[in-house]
Amino acid sequence: MPVSEFDIIEQVFKANALTGENVICGIGDDAAIIEVPVGQQLLVSTDTLVSGVHFFSDADPYDIGYKSLAVNLSDMAAMAASPAWMTLALTLPDNDLGWLRKFADGLFALANQYKVALIGGNIAHGPLSITITIMGTVPSGQALKRSAAKPGDDIYVTGQLGMAAYALAILEDKTSRTTPPQACLERLNRPAPRVRTGIAVRSCASAGIDISDGLAADLAHMLKASAVGARIELAAIPAYAMLKKLDEDAMWKYALCSGDDYELCFTVPTRHRPLLEQAMKNTDCGFTRIGQISSEPGIRWLAADGSDRQISGSGYRHF
Amino acid sequence: MPVSEFDIIEQVFKANALTGENVICGIGDDAAIIEVPVGQQLLVSTDTLVSGVHFFSDADPYDIGYKSLAVNLSDMAAMAASPAWMTLALTLPDNDLGWLRKFADGLFALANQYKVALIGGNIAHGPLSITITIMGTVPSGQALKRSAAKPGDDIYVTGQLGMAAYALAILEDKTSRTTPPQACLERLNRPAPRVRTGIAVRSCASAGIDISDGLAADLAHMLKASAVGARIELAAIPAYAMLKKLDEDAMWKYALCSGDDYELCFTVPTRHRPLLEQAMKNTDCGFTRIGQISSEPGIRWLAADGSDRQISGSGYRHF
Repeated sequence: MPVSEFDIIEQVFKANALTGENVICGIGDDAAIIEVPVGQQLLVSTDTLVSGVHFFSDADPYDIGYKSLAVNLSDMAAMAASPAWMTLALTLPDNDLGWLRKFADGLFALANQYKVALIGGNIAHGPLSITITIMGTVPSGQALKRSAAKPGDDIYVTGQLGMAAYALAILEDKTSRTTPPQACLERLNRPAPRVRTGIAVRSCASAGIDISDGLAADLAHMLKASAVGARIELAAIPAYAMLKKLDEDAMWKYALCSGDDYELCFTVPTRHRPLLEQAMKNTDCGFTRIGQISSEPGIRWLAADGSDRQISGSGYRHF
Repeated sequence: MPVSEFDIIEQVFKANALTGENVICGIGDDAAIIEVPVGQQLLVSTDTLVSGVHFFSDADPYDIGYKSLAVNLSDMAAMAASPAWMTLALTLPDNDLGWLRKFADGLFALANQYKVALIGGNIAHGPLSITITIMGTVPSGQALKRSAAKPGDDIYVTGQLGMAAYALAILEDKTSRTTPPQACLERLNRPAPRVRTGIAVRSCASAGIDISDGLAADLAHMLKASAVGARIELAAIPAYAMLKKLDEDAMWKYALCSGDDYELCFTVPTRHRPLLEQAMKNTDCGFTRIGQISSEPGIRWLAADGSDRQISGSGYRHF
């Protein structure tokens, strides 16, 4: 017996969906009804993963479900928002219930971890792709924008850079290795969105962005939006340890100019350093000061001896 | 020179996007920031159109843009919500700026008509599909749900049924006609979401749904959600005039069991009939009473002589 869109929604998604705080009406009507608490602003972001473009077509459906939400949570983290609700638009070539159950397991594993309620969505027939619209809240006026970095602010990044890109390059057979390190594969397939960090630095950071297309490209977006520049100390960049064994060009290609890090880059006025160190005690990732905002536009990449270095490549391009 | 995702967003979408009421931060950051006015609930819905499934792959991009938003606005109409904001997730096989500009013209023509602000989105490389997440507001507690129809309530539909399905059947060469009537083509390509009607009946209707998969299927969803049934007078169904020249089975197939009407079906307690007639004076479409909610489950389709009739087919199926 064929499985209809309605069966899939009932059996796979509705059954697992959290009821969720402030959800007046969830899956099952023409639209969901939610209450945004008074004093909070609503944050909204949308991201799509396409089979064969953002993941291998034979990827584990659990990982696809997990990553589809993770990349969206990373946008909430970048704005210092508390994620709360999501819609899921799923385009499927067929109605493979086994695949869907695994996809849902991955999706809900992360959704439950961050208490994100699935409030609605759509299932369409077509080439496999997943679009999630994530919604969250911040106390009014406290969202972390790209556009508020000021000269003199310290620049920080979380975690280590280049792990996912290194795993991808190995899988695509572009290196001499045959198997990616497990930790890198984990970062590629199940990135850890820095939601707790985003919320923790809300009170002290001036601007923030998530690193999805490579630090060089994403930092440039933040600088442009803030109409400032940056001086970055290359020796301070927390490149993944194994990358340091590669030649320097390859190391910076992975650590600065490749996609899928899903770490945060944020700026903090120097006077707030003690506040930042206190705030970061409650998060689950390391953080590193990599440089400072300057008034001169563009990024100056500085070697240990103070000389300028060119970093080529401008991050992941979508076309 | 290749056109990047960022160029497309800047040149095609950001330039045309309404600033929008209550939009604190629109396109250009990791997430949009919006203010939901105090006393209002937030309504959220997502719909996807896939090339070759929901529209012909050579369809006019203006129509694709228009319809992508129209089907989402129809969900807001069904809930009696005032649409306000949307995100757009676009998956594109290439970066054809001419196509994109026409798509945006169609999208914004309708967005501007209903003052819907584009607040964010995503552009990905892949087979053509469009996912819009629409957001709107209603005064708290006044959304029109599927689940509140009561025995004795009158059942109404707006407009005429079967026009889009008739156009589609002609285009797909399933009839003896070669060209669809212009009015039917218009309904197929640029459906008119019944937003004003939804808002107008908010004060008197008990339940509502939009007719996207055929009245038979969508009414059944409403009845199931409300745990009631319905008696429908077939003679009262506002089937598109030209369908009445076809044999009865074909007429009901188009008018009751086919997709793409985007009319509303709503229920009104009989005591509110005068209120309804007053409310409908401010809308832009006709409305017809087609029957009554009953306590006995299921739909009884009644011929003019009072005898039962079987309506076969259960509307558009997604798989």
